[in-house]
Amino acid sequence: MTILPPTLAEAIAEVAIEVDRRFDTLLAVPDDPRADLYACMRHAAIGGGKRLRPLLTMATAGLLGVDRDCAALVGTAIEAIHVYSLIHDDLPAMDDDDLRRGKPTAHKVYGEATAILAGDCLHALAFEVLADPATHPDPFVRAELVLDLARASGPSGMAGGQMMDLAAEDARFDLATVTRLQQMKTGALICAAVEAGAILGRLPPEGRTGLRGYAHDLGLAFQIADDLLDAEGDEAVAGKRLRKDEGAGKETFLTLMGVDRARAQCTMLVDQAVRHLHGFGAEADLLRAVATYVVERDR
Amino acid sequence: MTILPPTLAEAIAEVAIEVDRRFDTLLAVPDDPRADLYACMRHAAIGGGKRLRPLLTMATAGLLGVDRDCAALVGTAIEAIHVYSLIHDDLPAMDDDDLRRGKPTAHKVYGEATAILAGDCLHALAFEVLADPATHPDPFVRAELVLDLARASGPSGMAGGQMMDLAAEDARFDLATVTRLQQMKTGALICAAVEAGAILGRLPPEGRTGLRGYAHDLGLAFQIADDLLDAEGDEAVAGKRLRKDEGAGKETFLTLMGVDRARAQCTMLVDQAVRHLHGFGAEADLLRAVATYVVERDR
Repeated sequence: MTILPPTLAEAIAEVAIEVDRRFDTLLAVPDDPRADLYACMRHAAIGGGKRLRPLLTMATAGLLGVDRDCAALVGTAIEAIHVYSLIHDDLPAMDDDDLRRGKPTAHKVYGEATAILAGDCLHALAFEVLADPATHPDPFVRAELVLDLARASGPSGMAGGQMMDLAAEDARFDLATVTRLQQMKTGALICAAVEAGAILGRLPPEGRTGLRGYAHDLGLAFQIADDLLDAEGDEAVAGKRLRKDEGAGKETFLTLMGVDRARAQCTMLVDQAVRHLHGFGAEADLLRAVATYVVERDR
Repeated sequence: MTILPPTLAEAIAEVAIEVDRRFDTLLAVPDDPRADLYACMRHAAIGGGKRLRPLLTMATAGLLGVDRDCAALVGTAIEAIHVYSLIHDDLPAMDDDDLRRGKPTAHKVYGEATAILAGDCLHALAFEVLADPATHPDPFVRAELVLDLARASGPSGMAGGQMMDLAAEDARFDLATVTRLQQMKTGALICAAVEAGAILGRLPPEGRTGLRGYAHDLGLAFQIADDLLDAEGDEAVAGKRLRKDEGAGKETFLTLMGVDRARAQCTMLVDQAVRHLHGFGAEADLLRAVATYVVERDR
């Protein structure tokens, strides 16, 4: 059993390799009329992204002494949900984006129909991996992982948040509503990624309070950092279209708080996230480093 | 514990009521910006359809003495997957349909973005229901149900079959390829619905051979009957656009076999499906009646 290296840069690089390797196996292209479907899934899933969610799952699992292979597979399943949501959110009927992770979006390369189906397939594959006895021998763990991820990605989580985000263009949301929107759209899956590590580590629910507080504050800090990146970042480095919020006329953390207060709030949330880990020793240093990374990243 | 009434018409009517009631509870409209998302899910999920898949789950579960409430919930989860696939398949980028189950399609009423998200949410909700301890107390059963449904709906099942169906417009498939396409696109979920009943009934895999043979042959008969309906049916009764195969220039069971041979093949498959149930007594009469219904239906 191995765990992730303690330094952040090494851990990020290793998680990227682990996730790519698992997607490469899961998405082997069949020699039949579904070849384009698999090529589209591979295009969106392999070789890009920060892999923040699998990093969180693997760092949390590593902290609790879970086998890294198992954590990598579960992290890849959660990343599959994230990738499916990016494919669907980028569609012309949704955010209509051309660029993602430095590449043309899935529908730009493979067409809308294949992109919709590729998203649906990654969605199903995520649950197939989590429920597979080859991923974890204990059915209780498998069922809990599925429930964790299904709740976080459905109408009370990620997809519900995306719906609120679409509605935000025609409404004027206050700070409480924007916070709830972002907690659903981005925060829920980040929380699910940490929770998955705790489930794999067989931490009882009453022992998860610190990790849950960490994930909650990290998710919010991540989104505020995303808003700052949208306003101030470099498109070439970020690998996606920026300045989108400006044009959409939506309320965001920036429009509601201003840049300076948003930046201060982000730093405060990261400090708070780290304080939630006070019950852990040096074995949680990677999670602490991830929290700092989230606000300092440039993509 | 109650089981379904033995006559087909009564059973169909009761399953429709049970499924609608569960969707009504699962899809209670929240008083927030997601109201349209839930309204769209309700539009597509409630009050329509043959409910063949929950009927199969409930009839199989009933045959094995499973509590009807539990089987109804699991059947509703499987129907949620079917409904999500109808919403996405009807999108302009896919089959571009205006009419479904006698109503305008989801995107016609709520727009494409909401329809895509409504499909994604029903997809997630299905797995949330199956993994919920309130649905079944045994985590082994829950994990097995999730695996059954994820495999049947993903790239090796329903969604993969839809991809092959899209590719069929630009290719000339032979009978073996069309048969495989249909087994994936429609047959896999029909098999999963029967399998779910067997899982709930705790039938060991080696005891499922007869039910699996039944489901396999029924799924194929169902699709041939669908092709016949597309060519000969009444749109007002079917509640959806017909004569689609003609215009698309795709190979189907009809183009490859002709009407008479297709009809004979369909009858032969139903007989064969019923013969697979020879190990069961009168308690399987409902499944036998369902097989006959599949070829005689007009919608």
